[in-house]
Amino acid sequence: MPSYKAPLQDINFLLKDVFDATSHYATLDNCPEITEDVIDAIINEAAKFAEQVVGPLNAVGDAEGCQFNDGKVTTPTGFKDAYQQYVDNGWVGLGCPEEFGGQNMPPSLGSVVSEMIGGSNWAWSMYPGLSNAGIECIGAHGSEEQKQTYLHHLVKGSWTGSMCLTEPHCGSDVGLIKTKAIANADGSYSMTGTKIFISGGDHDMADNIIHMVLARVEGAPEGTKGISLFIVPKFIVNEDGTLGERNTVNAGSIEHKMGCNGSATCVMNFDGAKAFIVGEENSGLQQMFTMMNTARIGTALQGMCIGNNSYQGAVEYAKERLQMRSLSGPKNEKGPADPIIVHPDVRRMLLTQKSLIEGSRALVYWLNQENDKSQFAKTDEERETAEAILGMLTPLAKGFCTEVGNEVSAIGIQVYGGHGFIREHGMEQHARDNRISTIWEGTTGIQALDLIGRKVLGSGGELLRGVTKIIHKYCEANKDDALLAPFVESLAARNKEWGEVTMTVGAAAMENPDEVGAASVDYLMFGGYVILGYLWSKMAQISQAKIDAGDNNPLYFSKVHTAKFYFDRIMPRTNVHLQAMKTGSANLMDIQEEHFIIS
Amino acid sequence: MPSYKAPLQDINFLLKDVFDATSHYATLDNCPEITEDVIDAIINEAAKFAEQVVGPLNAVGDAEGCQFNDGKVTTPTGFKDAYQQYVDNGWVGLGCPEEFGGQNMPPSLGSVVSEMIGGSNWAWSMYPGLSNAGIECIGAHGSEEQKQTYLHHLVKGSWTGSMCLTEPHCGSDVGLIKTKAIANADGSYSMTGTKIFISGGDHDMADNIIHMVLARVEGAPEGTKGISLFIVPKFIVNEDGTLGERNTVNAGSIEHKMGCNGSATCVMNFDGAKAFIVGEENSGLQQMFTMMNTARIGTALQGMCIGNNSYQGAVEYAKERLQMRSLSGPKNEKGPADPIIVHPDVRRMLLTQKSLIEGSRALVYWLNQENDKSQFAKTDEERETAEAILGMLTPLAKGFCTEVGNEVSAIGIQVYGGHGFIREHGMEQHARDNRISTIWEGTTGIQALDLIGRKVLGSGGELLRGVTKIIHKYCEANKDDALLAPFVESLAARNKEWGEVTMTVGAAAMENPDEVGAASVDYLMFGGYVILGYLWSKMAQISQAKIDAGDNNPLYFSKVHTAKFYFDRIMPRTNVHLQAMKTGSANLMDIQEEHFIIS
Repeated sequence: MPSYKAPLQDINFLLKDVFDATSHYATLDNCPEITEDVIDAIINEAAKFAEQVVGPLNAVGDAEGCQFNDGKVTTPTGFKDAYQQYVDNGWVGLGCPEEFGGQNMPPSLGSVVSEMIGGSNWAWSMYPGLSNAGIECIGAHGSEEQKQTYLHHLVKGSWTGSMCLTEPHCGSDVGLIKTKAIANADGSYSMTGTKIFISGGDHDMADNIIHMVLARVEGAPEGTKGISLFIVPKFIVNEDGTLGERNTVNAGSIEHKMGCNGSATCVMNFDGAKAFIVGEENSGLQQMFTMMNTARIGTALQGMCIGNNSYQGAVEYAKERLQMRSLSGPKNEKGPADPIIVHPDVRRMLLTQKSLIEGSRALVYWLNQENDKSQFAKTDEERETAEAILGMLTPLAKGFCTEVGNEVSAIGIQVYGGHGFIREHGMEQHARDNRISTIWEGTTGIQALDLIGRKVLGSGGELLRGVTKIIHKYCEANKDDALLAPFVESLAARNKEWGEVTMTVGAAAMENPDEVGAASVDYLMFGGYVILGYLWSKMAQISQAKIDAGDNNPLYFSKVHTAKFYFDRIMPRTNVHLQAMKTGSANLMDIQEEHFIIS
Repeated sequence: MPSYKAPLQDINFLLKDVFDATSHYATLDNCPEITEDVIDAIINEAAKFAEQVVGPLNAVGDAEGCQFNDGKVTTPTGFKDAYQQYVDNGWVGLGCPEEFGGQNMPPSLGSVVSEMIGGSNWAWSMYPGLSNAGIECIGAHGSEEQKQTYLHHLVKGSWTGSMCLTEPHCGSDVGLIKTKAIANADGSYSMTGTKIFISGGDHDMADNIIHMVLARVEGAPEGTKGISLFIVPKFIVNEDGTLGERNTVNAGSIEHKMGCNGSATCVMNFDGAKAFIVGEENSGLQQMFTMMNTARIGTALQGMCIGNNSYQGAVEYAKERLQMRSLSGPKNEKGPADPIIVHPDVRRMLLTQKSLIEGSRALVYWLNQENDKSQFAKTDEERETAEAILGMLTPLAKGFCTEVGNEVSAIGIQVYGGHGFIREHGMEQHARDNRISTIWEGTTGIQALDLIGRKVLGSGGELLRGVTKIIHKYCEANKDDALLAPFVESLAARNKEWGEVTMTVGAAAMENPDEVGAASVDYLMFGGYVILGYLWSKMAQISQAKIDAGDNNPLYFSKVHTAKFYFDRIMPRTNVHLQAMKTGSANLMDIQEEHFIIS
């Protein structure tokens, strides 16, 4: 079982060489001064925690899973203790407001920490991750009293949070929610209903669990307009802040899943549970949406960082495993065979992983900085520009990074051959743990509709132009550079196609709205490959400049090579997606339901 | 948990409308007369057995897995009983020689049975599947005495078989085998070594297990030239046919795997075990190769038939699950939402599954008939033609059908959303069970090297021309047909590209052998999409003729639509593979090992 190794070289390359984090942080307002020393300290400590404390629990968490007995969830051996260390080290409050005990760091730093903690053990990282969602939610929409009551404990980590949205009959379609809240005389509500797929809905790590629940106040309008957001604590909090009576919200069972077994996925039953409304009635959906950017970037990060494990494992194995001779002559003459990394097809697999994972990482880091700006930039204009880029690229990153993350995890198994299919090496766990990333926080299909429908066509193309303009300017500025010219030529052509196909689909959609859905996922994947092309060209450019300046760090050579690979062998995928989009919706819609014959 | 439903309509469409099975069987020699009644009886009985006996054990087999205690393997609840019914019904001997109690049916009929039995429960089907491999092996290469000693019991099913090839340090690279056989005075050998990944190496279903083992006779030449094939029975068989002493071959442990949990995957220890050589010393590899076509078609079938379950499950769910409204207006006005099959992107997923699975099924059925001919055709010429097509298309089908089978199984989860990730609906099990199919019996990379290296370039292009000529003739004959013209135009262009890129890669390989490996998997996938295009065009043509003749079976309309979908949205994938191949090996080989930086 390979142990987790934080990808510090690539993280530092992005933070220092590509995205110049210290200069970026210097432009922000209302957050602490973040020097290179601060960044280094946080990253190195998080790496140590991931490698030494959380990572070693990844396999045991998968094998043991959570247990459900007598209505209570027990987490796998070691999970509780690791959580206590995480709390004691103050990690929970990293990005939380100072007035509640946090350190008020911008989201981008928290994301790098999440990348390593989650990369080392995604299931474990779900518990503190859900707390962050609750903190963000109450911080943005809760009353002052609610903030005082809940945030100190959540920020400290002595309590955790959960998000209760899904019900048996509704996932993506939140408007169908049935969970009901009836107003009590004291201003609280009585909540009744069943929620499913609730991560961290119950566990044994913290003294209290604060559920953020979407429900329908009795008599509210149908659909999404009648949804309200509530706080439902596991233990009611007394006025003096101590824990009072046990609320009537209980885990009914836990799910047996494909992966993320160490994370408890609960059915939660609300039996007249005491609930406290957040903000106004019927404004629950908008409140929930304010958290969606961070949550979706966090899921893009899941696809990337679990995929990263598969890549790392595959590289280690490919360098060690001796099997067959190179077709161009032995490379390890004294050994019984050559390491499989000599074989072109093994390299094709490794470079596919490398280019997709490192490209996805660059995309996530870009979005993290835009996320910082959207919250902490000094001017409205900067914040709005950042919001526009985020609005466009967040659904794209969520869909794309998780889809390619799954591809990368599948390749990780393939490089190991039969040894990838058995549990021993951990490769199959990565694939299982990563499988959910294309589903939760909105499936790829939902992201794709958000991207092309709500964002691109909904803005009359403005959000798209905000991004294609960046790429266009980049191409114009670099088209005469010898290294970059072939990249830029390809990139400029794809960028132009992106605009054109948007017009084509948009025009068709005026006649037939199904044209949007028929193009949507191909549109998202097309865009993802273009964005990664832009980032790979930039990374190659920056690396080549370092090489030209005499820096012999192998990482820089690696980036230049990987960019070439990406443009040669990955970028052509845009073509399939473009052609598919152009075929329109008839090839999907003309077939009748009765034609899907299965037996 | 959806129950298994045998895809009888599609099976009958292929056997009757597309491949005219009764006429095909009439051309064969040395096998029983196979009328439509015989075919129907076998298929319907197998469907019933799959649906009623083996299918219901699929989930329990996954959940329980095999147990290993005191050196013995216990299979999951119900497995042993189902096996006994399978034996009692005479299924084991379907394709086995009559003189040993079999029915001597050609391989294509056994394959349809395997499709349903394996589709309903792949893990269970491994046990009888391994017996068939042993029967084929001893039947082809064993002495008369060995046949008499082992085949009666294997064909009846009272004993089972295992294939022992892999060792801890060698999988694909069989030449590295270390297991040693020392000749005894009585003509037997003493075998010492360790084999891993041995399916059915031990279990509780049968009285004896006959291991077919590759090992190296003391003093044999190094590499593949010094490999011999042995029979190593679990219990030595006495001269009178009764079981004698327990041989010193034992399961040391079983693997914990991603899937196929009901199939015992054993570490087998040979501690001076009594072994009987098959044929001559040092001819083991050729003997093993004679079974490789059937085994690889059988694995292509695995990718297809497990993928089929994912497709069936996804269709059922998409018709039932109510979520969101159609963008083009409600389709289920009285319900709270529309079934998700109304959404274009859900249809894109279902049609991707449908076109790949039904296309793969057609490919497997085609190869089955060629496999029949290669063994039972009346003339040498027919047998040789069949051998040539098989040689070319077997590695292609093994690689392609398993790769797309895995894609289809992943889509099955996606259609279910969060419900796909939990165990309850069985979708994630299909994905886990299917994951091994791209690995065993030779990985996709190994198949691809066999295809482009050994078969295509090794025959100076002759084996490729044997296939492209069939497609070329088909295109010429149908280019003026209104329905087929667009298919044929695309197909003819891709077929031409196939020849051209073969020349390009072949020429480059003369300078640099790594060019073969650099193109190999893209070459295989490119070819797979072309072959499926040919089969989809044929299926559409046959179906349209039925429709034109007044047959309103929805299946025919479904085939015509699916062909359109395939050419619109799947066939363009060939372009990516073509472009990737043309970029050559430099983008893979120029990067240094030290550039694969992981931490």
